[in-house]
Amino acid sequence: MKPLRPGSMRPIDFTSGRVDLTHGSGGRSMAQLIEELFIANFDNEYLRQQNDQAVFEVPKGRLVMATDAHVVSPLFFPGGDIGCLSVHGTINDVATAGARPLYLAASFVLEEGFPLADLRRIVRSMAKASMEAGVPIVTGDTKVVEQGKGDGVFITTTGVGVVPEGVSPSGDRARPGDRILCSGSIGDHGVAIMAQRESLGFSTTLESDTAALHTLVERLVKVAPDVHVLRDPTRGGVAATLNEIARQSKVGMLIREAAIPVRQEVKAACEFLGLDPLNVANEGKLLVLCAPADADALLVAMKEHPLGRQAAVIGAVHEDPNCFVQMETVFGGKRIVDWLAGEQLPRIC
Amino acid sequence: MKPLRPGSMRPIDFTSGRVDLTHGSGGRSMAQLIEELFIANFDNEYLRQQNDQAVFEVPKGRLVMATDAHVVSPLFFPGGDIGCLSVHGTINDVATAGARPLYLAASFVLEEGFPLADLRRIVRSMAKASMEAGVPIVTGDTKVVEQGKGDGVFITTTGVGVVPEGVSPSGDRARPGDRILCSGSIGDHGVAIMAQRESLGFSTTLESDTAALHTLVERLVKVAPDVHVLRDPTRGGVAATLNEIARQSKVGMLIREAAIPVRQEVKAACEFLGLDPLNVANEGKLLVLCAPADADALLVAMKEHPLGRQAAVIGAVHEDPNCFVQMETVFGGKRIVDWLAGEQLPRIC
Repeated sequence: MKPLRPGSMRPIDFTSGRVDLTHGSGGRSMAQLIEELFIANFDNEYLRQQNDQAVFEVPKGRLVMATDAHVVSPLFFPGGDIGCLSVHGTINDVATAGARPLYLAASFVLEEGFPLADLRRIVRSMAKASMEAGVPIVTGDTKVVEQGKGDGVFITTTGVGVVPEGVSPSGDRARPGDRILCSGSIGDHGVAIMAQRESLGFSTTLESDTAALHTLVERLVKVAPDVHVLRDPTRGGVAATLNEIARQSKVGMLIREAAIPVRQEVKAACEFLGLDPLNVANEGKLLVLCAPADADALLVAMKEHPLGRQAAVIGAVHEDPNCFVQMETVFGGKRIVDWLAGEQLPRIC
Repeated sequence: MKPLRPGSMRPIDFTSGRVDLTHGSGGRSMAQLIEELFIANFDNEYLRQQNDQAVFEVPKGRLVMATDAHVVSPLFFPGGDIGCLSVHGTINDVATAGARPLYLAASFVLEEGFPLADLRRIVRSMAKASMEAGVPIVTGDTKVVEQGKGDGVFITTTGVGVVPEGVSPSGDRARPGDRILCSGSIGDHGVAIMAQRESLGFSTTLESDTAALHTLVERLVKVAPDVHVLRDPTRGGVAATLNEIARQSKVGMLIREAAIPVRQEVKAACEFLGLDPLNVANEGKLLVLCAPADADALLVAMKEHPLGRQAAVIGAVHEDPNCFVQMETVFGGKRIVDWLAGEQLPRIC
C-alpha cells in the first residue's frame, strides 16, 4: 500500500487532539485514524488489507455469531474499561454456545470532541484483551456524531466461532434434576461500576471481574460435551439469567443462598446501595447447568481453571409449570428470586 | 417457551409509548421488547431460541465478515430510513468480497424517550429489507442510553457470508489496463439526505438509492470469477473509493466525466450546495474493476440486472507511482479527483 501521509499530513496528535467529524467521513482523516490507531494497535493481516470486510477460512460445521453493543458509563472503571469489556463480552457470548471464538468485528460510534488520548487508551485495551484471548479484531467501522449526540464512545463487537461436534448447550436444555454451577463470586462488575459512579470509598478494593471465558468453556465441553446450558450472567445478574433459562426450558429452580459465592465487599456495598447481588451484573462469570452425573467432573474442571477457583454447585432444577426460580435463604426460609422489570443499574455494560 | 406476560404485564404501547432505560436493562421489560418487537418482526428460528448468540451450519470454505455502524440523520429520508439502510449497507460490504451473504446480526443503541412507534417503523423496515434480500437477522442486542447521550437510534449490523471458490476481489488487485465500471447514477443517496436535512424543494423528486447489491454481485462473479475489485462507493463517494483502491493497488486511474451517470436533479442540487457528485455517498451502487477482456461481459450482465440498468464503463487503470485518480472533464481538460480530508456531509449513513 502507498503511504497515506506524503509529508503534508501530520501524524495524529494522540496527546491533546480530539475526535472531529472528519474522522468518520470516509475521507483521508478517517483513513489516517484507521491506520495510525486501529491497524497499528490491532495489528493483523486482515485489517492491513484495508477492505470493507475480512475473509478467512473456516472448517465445515456449525458456526456461532454473537453481537453486543457496549455503552458502559464511566468508560474507565476499576479492573477494566469499555475496550477490554467489549472484547470479553462478545467472546463470552460466542463461548457460551460451547464454541471456540475465532474472529471479532468492532464498530465505533464516537462523539465529536472526545479526547484521542482516551480513545487510544481504549483501543490499546481492546488490542491487549484480543491478543491475550487469541481472537483477533479483523474488521471494523468508525462513525462520528456531533457533540451532545453521543457519549464519548459506544462500541459494538461481533464475534464468530466454531462449535465442536456433539456440543450444543442452549437455554432450553435445562432438565429436572440438573445441577446449577456458578464459576465464582457474583456482583463484582456491577458493584465496581456503581462504586466508581457514586464515588464510594470501596472502589479501591473492588474490581470488575471482566474476563474472557472461552478457555474455561473449552475445558468444560471437553470434560462434559453434553453440558446442557452455559450462560454468562451479565445485565440483570444471576437472577435474570436463571429466570430466562427457567422460562426457555419450562422448569423451576431452587438455589441455596449459602452456596453462592459473594465477596464481603460486594455484600457490604449491596446493603449500602439497596441492591441484591443476584440482580447485579457480572462480566467474567459462568453459569453451568448439567446432568447430575456430569456435575462433579465439571466442578473439578472449573476449580482447576484460574477463572473458576471459587466455583460451586449453587442449586438444582426441578419440575415447575410456573417456572419459578426460588432460593433457600441463609435463614432457612424460601423466597422467589424475582426477575426485575428493569434493573437498578443502567449502562452497566 | 413459557409466555412472558402472565396477565399482569400489558402489551407494549407502540402507538404513544417511548423507550425507557428498562428496555436495555436485561430485565423483563427488555425481554418483552425483544419478543414483541424484534422477534415478532424479524421472525426466524434463530432469534426465537432466545440465546445470546445464533448457531448455524456453514459449508467449508472462505467466510467473510463485515460490520457497519449506522448513525444517519435524519432517521427517515426519501427512499428509505436507517432500518433498511443498515441491512443494505452490511449486505453490500459482505457482497463486495464476491460473497453470498448468509446471516446478519443487529445491535441497537436507543436513546431514552425515543418514540416506540418510530422504532417499530425502523424495525419493520429492517425486517422487510432482510426478507427481500433473503438474509435473516439471527441475533442482536439492545442498549438504552439516557436522553441527550444518544440521538434516537444507532444501529450496528454485522454480516457473514461465503465466498465462492476461485473468487477473490480485493482493493489491492487493480492492474494497469483494468477497466472501471460503475453500476448506475451517482450521488443519489447523499443528495437525498442533504435535501431532507436542508429542507430543499427537490427532496420530492430525488430518492436515496439504498439497495442490496448481492444478487448483482452474484451474477457478476458468475460471469467473471476473476473480477479484480468490487466496492460500493458509500461515504466519500466515488472519489474516495477510487483513491482508496488506487492507493491499495499502487496504480493510477483516469475516469471520463462524460461517461459517469449523474441524474439531472443531483447535478442541480450539487451545484446549489457546492458539492461535487464524485464526493457524494451512494448506498446502492457498485464500482467494478476488471481485466479488459472481462469488461464487455460484465457490462452486459450489469445492464441486465435491475440495479445496473445504467451501468457504464467510466474509466481505466494505468501505471502511476503517485497513485493519482484523474478525470477527463466534459470540457476536454484533465483534473485530479481529490480525496478530501473530510467530507461535506457528516452522518450520511
